[in-house]
Amino acid sequence: MENIKIAVVQMEVVAGRADINVEKIIQKIKEAKENKNDVVIFPEMAASGYLLGDEWENNGLIKKLMEINEKIREESEGITVIWGNVWADFDKMGEDGRVRKYNAALIAADKKWLDNGVFEGHTFKTLLPKYREFDDERHFYSMQKLADEKQVDIKELLKPFEVEIRGQKIKIGLSLCEDMWDENYFNKPIEILVENGSEIVVNISASPWTWQKNNKRHQIVKKILFKNPVNFVYCNNVGIQNNGKNIFLFDGSSTIYNHDGEIIKTAEPYKEEVLEINLSEFNKGVSKETESLKNRDTEELYDGLIYGLRKFFEQNSLKKAVIGISGGIDSAVSASLLTTALGKEKVLGINMPSKFNADLTKNAAKKLAENLEIEYKIISIQDGVNLTEKQLKDNGFEVSEMVVENIQARDRGSRILAGVAAVVGGVMINNSNKTEMALGYTTLYGDMNGAICPLADLYKWEVYKLAEYINKINQNEIIPKEIFEVVPSAELSDKQDVTIGKGDPILYLYHDKLVRALVEFRKDPMEILEWYDKKTIEVEMHLETGMIERYFKNRDEFKKDLEEKWKMFKLSYFKRIQAPPIIAVSRRAFGYDLRESQNGAYIAS
Amino acid sequence: MENIKIAVVQMEVVAGRADINVEKIIQKIKEAKENKNDVVIFPEMAASGYLLGDEWENNGLIKKLMEINEKIREESEGITVIWGNVWADFDKMGEDGRVRKYNAALIAADKKWLDNGVFEGHTFKTLLPKYREFDDERHFYSMQKLADEKQVDIKELLKPFEVEIRGQKIKIGLSLCEDMWDENYFNKPIEILVENGSEIVVNISASPWTWQKNNKRHQIVKKILFKNPVNFVYCNNVGIQNNGKNIFLFDGSSTIYNHDGEIIKTAEPYKEEVLEINLSEFNKGVSKETESLKNRDTEELYDGLIYGLRKFFEQNSLKKAVIGISGGIDSAVSASLLTTALGKEKVLGINMPSKFNADLTKNAAKKLAENLEIEYKIISIQDGVNLTEKQLKDNGFEVSEMVVENIQARDRGSRILAGVAAVVGGVMINNSNKTEMALGYTTLYGDMNGAICPLADLYKWEVYKLAEYINKINQNEIIPKEIFEVVPSAELSDKQDVTIGKGDPILYLYHDKLVRALVEFRKDPMEILEWYDKKTIEVEMHLETGMIERYFKNRDEFKKDLEEKWKMFKLSYFKRIQAPPIIAVSRRAFGYDLRESQNGAYIAS
Repeated sequence: MENIKIAVVQMEVVAGRADINVEKIIQKIKEAKENKNDVVIFPEMAASGYLLGDEWENNGLIKKLMEINEKIREESEGITVIWGNVWADFDKMGEDGRVRKYNAALIAADKKWLDNGVFEGHTFKTLLPKYREFDDERHFYSMQKLADEKQVDIKELLKPFEVEIRGQKIKIGLSLCEDMWDENYFNKPIEILVENGSEIVVNISASPWTWQKNNKRHQIVKKILFKNPVNFVYCNNVGIQNNGKNIFLFDGSSTIYNHDGEIIKTAEPYKEEVLEINLSEFNKGVSKETESLKNRDTEELYDGLIYGLRKFFEQNSLKKAVIGISGGIDSAVSASLLTTALGKEKVLGINMPSKFNADLTKNAAKKLAENLEIEYKIISIQDGVNLTEKQLKDNGFEVSEMVVENIQARDRGSRILAGVAAVVGGVMINNSNKTEMALGYTTLYGDMNGAICPLADLYKWEVYKLAEYINKINQNEIIPKEIFEVVPSAELSDKQDVTIGKGDPILYLYHDKLVRALVEFRKDPMEILEWYDKKTIEVEMHLETGMIERYFKNRDEFKKDLEEKWKMFKLSYFKRIQAPPIIAVSRRAFGYDLRESQNGAYIAS
Repeated sequence: MENIKIAVVQMEVVAGRADINVEKIIQKIKEAKENKNDVVIFPEMAASGYLLGDEWENNGLIKKLMEINEKIREESEGITVIWGNVWADFDKMGEDGRVRKYNAALIAADKKWLDNGVFEGHTFKTLLPKYREFDDERHFYSMQKLADEKQVDIKELLKPFEVEIRGQKIKIGLSLCEDMWDENYFNKPIEILVENGSEIVVNISASPWTWQKNNKRHQIVKKILFKNPVNFVYCNNVGIQNNGKNIFLFDGSSTIYNHDGEIIKTAEPYKEEVLEINLSEFNKGVSKETESLKNRDTEELYDGLIYGLRKFFEQNSLKKAVIGISGGIDSAVSASLLTTALGKEKVLGINMPSKFNADLTKNAAKKLAENLEIEYKIISIQDGVNLTEKQLKDNGFEVSEMVVENIQARDRGSRILAGVAAVVGGVMINNSNKTEMALGYTTLYGDMNGAICPLADLYKWEVYKLAEYINKINQNEIIPKEIFEVVPSAELSDKQDVTIGKGDPILYLYHDKLVRALVEFRKDPMEILEWYDKKTIEVEMHLETGMIERYFKNRDEFKKDLEEKWKMFKLSYFKRIQAPPIIAVSRRAFGYDLRESQNGAYIAS
């Protein structure tokens, strides 16, 4: 098999734009032929995109996608093509009573569907993820269900396809995404494919990036191949896709592994790229592993956010980002990311002072805008706030200090910023971080406004880390040092005076980690209190030694804060229901990833 | 079996409040014993509630719920108790890698778990719905998966429980909700339970009301029992539960059927009630069917909305509804519903005129408030709008008429109404109807604001029907006739002048039905155009004969409108992402029921 050559196409897939995707697939098939490849591989759901919401119920679309499968087959003259798309059985129903659809891997060569003795030209995804943002079970019928319905063993259905290339025969096993993440399923599709004779296993994926996902993938592949050695090809797409509440970053990072699970080649993240490999090369132990496994957390986060923001504006044809710049760290990082992602001419910064804003932050905001070289306006909210206060009082209402705080936030978000966005034909940016979003330290129709939340899946500490990284790669103090030094504050009343160090009622060093424990690690307050009692809390939550004692004098104080923060977390969900789309980067993002109900803050204890 | 008596407890279940629910279950067991019942039945997920979002991942909660199961068993002295709750296997994993959980029916008698030869005291849901708002597969392991894992036929697992009462033995088959809605599944759990010897089948449900659902249920039961005659008990809860984006109405309507599927007894919708039946009564052919099947569409809708609003305010401890009253039909119906649901002292109406509002609508708004006897204020937005316009112009921006329209809407929603809600400690009401919500004929941070949308799952025609119904049951013109007569209009510019009949750019009689076809019947524009070409559109969409010709001169005009409305529908999703919770009443509501992605408006054609 010395001369068989495979092309792995890491392409950008645009969800809902089969026209664009198919044109690209056809183009890439042509190029693969020109480069003398024998096999060309495309990602999962390469034609349609993966996150389409309930558009999978649109039968017109499904028919169109089935036609596209025939069209791609027609392009396979002189080459074997493997791609992901929906495969529909119009004679059968899914469990939702609609046309039955499968998440399929398709394979054609020389304009003919290949046959594996069970299916002609296609095979189906066995493991359908339904945690986090994934809804595969909602839309697709699994191979396991088909086996149950047919009353056959699934091993009878998961067969490799034999491909003949210049007289040489090779058996290719096809799997889709979750099929390799088999740890929690009783079915092990890759294992079955190897048992059934696969000489190479291809996994086509539509797999969004998440913190440390790629390292985890390398480990899983090693583990699977340790038991079932086989040459392994992982083909993932790039692009962004969304389900409304969340925007996911598809990083690609397609990888070719040898039969021990060592990395032979990987594609660059977030770039369209074709990896080519000759079958003979699978025996060579080229290891890019070390490089790939090193800690690049902040760098990966930064690259992902820049890519996500750029693509979001591009795909939605958005002309301008209108962003409130307060002189605080969140808006500084947000504005810097946008400027890099979109170019300075597409960012408009607005500072909206009231009588409570200090010169310190106002000057820092201005300096930031100058450093970024973006257009910058200062528009006061004081007249608007006064008018609202007067109208409420004239109508006999009492206006408390807390109400005035929120009036300011709404005057900024819904009167000034929304007005400016409308006149310039732009969209607003929401600068909230994850800790604020979790605790509801935000105002609905105020700082909660926006078309996108770049930072709402980042804790405050990550925002600072990004800020440092931004200054580092620019070799310049783009984000002025005052912004790092000033105490985080909403500056909505006399009590929130940055000049005397009065800031948010959040102990970020601790509450960041508390939010993480609740949201990402799915702990409840009882478990956290147990950690406190066992004195393991600083270890469990990765806190600096001594922090808990420094912040809380005794158990009562600790517990009171814990209960208060839990209440803030649960009761502020009413705000998150109305939050803009959040770019998901953590192991659990607010939105469609962490699904919540408005059920109050009661804890079963 | 003459003397065996069964109590079917249609109780209110409060999601997330196991404490309240369990106290009620224990109380109802006591009462059932006092009333000499031998068996008492509670709904699905009666202890925890059904819609908890991802709180199912909270292990502390799961442990607590397992303890509750033991607690309920302890209460079963002298009676057989059947109830729904989670059942966890802490030694095994679910496919999400977390503790494995089942949606279970539990059964205990005389403080002991009953044994069906397979399981001790519990059995599991086989069919897990995953369409519409349902996410059972996300959280629970199904009986089918368990059968696959154990490599046994599911018939070996679905066994009835034998109950012994005063020497008489009876075999009770336990099923959960979707297990009876088996049309699109290859497994037929009720059929298996009957084959395995069940003499009575109990279905415990947590089943939200939806348009014509109960009639459909009666038909399904008839169909199942026609093939497998068996006495059948359906026990559903009342209450409201939500998943953030949608509030669902659990109507109860628990029903006892004889073995032919004829209705013996039904409980009142939205009321806590205990149905009692002696086994001997199953033979009597009491048929309440005719009554139940008659068309009560508007009445059911009205009852459901009143119930939903009342419960929402109660459960969230909300003090006051602050509602903008414009003199149009939507706010009139919304205000009337709230006044009935909450009492007039809890509703505060605010009219917020600008220079564009006519005396006609302003007077009608006032009259409505007087009729409802609610507190009413008139607060002008003109100064606020002028200030915003001036500040934008002072900063060099050009302010178009369209921009001024949206400034008005935001001034109302985010400056005045939000301010008033804050000072009175109340919440805003969103008055949008479904057609406006679908077409994006709303302003974000303006009329899109609110804590709840009572009407956003109702088409304009349904709003009018409800208005008529409200006046009918009040035997009074609560909603003034001017409000019925005035042309629907946003009154945001000179062009939208109700006094000369200039209203919204929506042909409600047609576009209501178009939206319904797209959202509820999941048609795409190509299919609708096909209906037009085949001249079947008026029949398919239930339109008045001649309407299409009246509205559209030719195919081009029709097609242009269709494409424009499709574009409005798809592109306005960015607003719905940020919409408040919608009470779901149709076959498909915006929110978590119809899941959307922000993928533009391209149609694969």
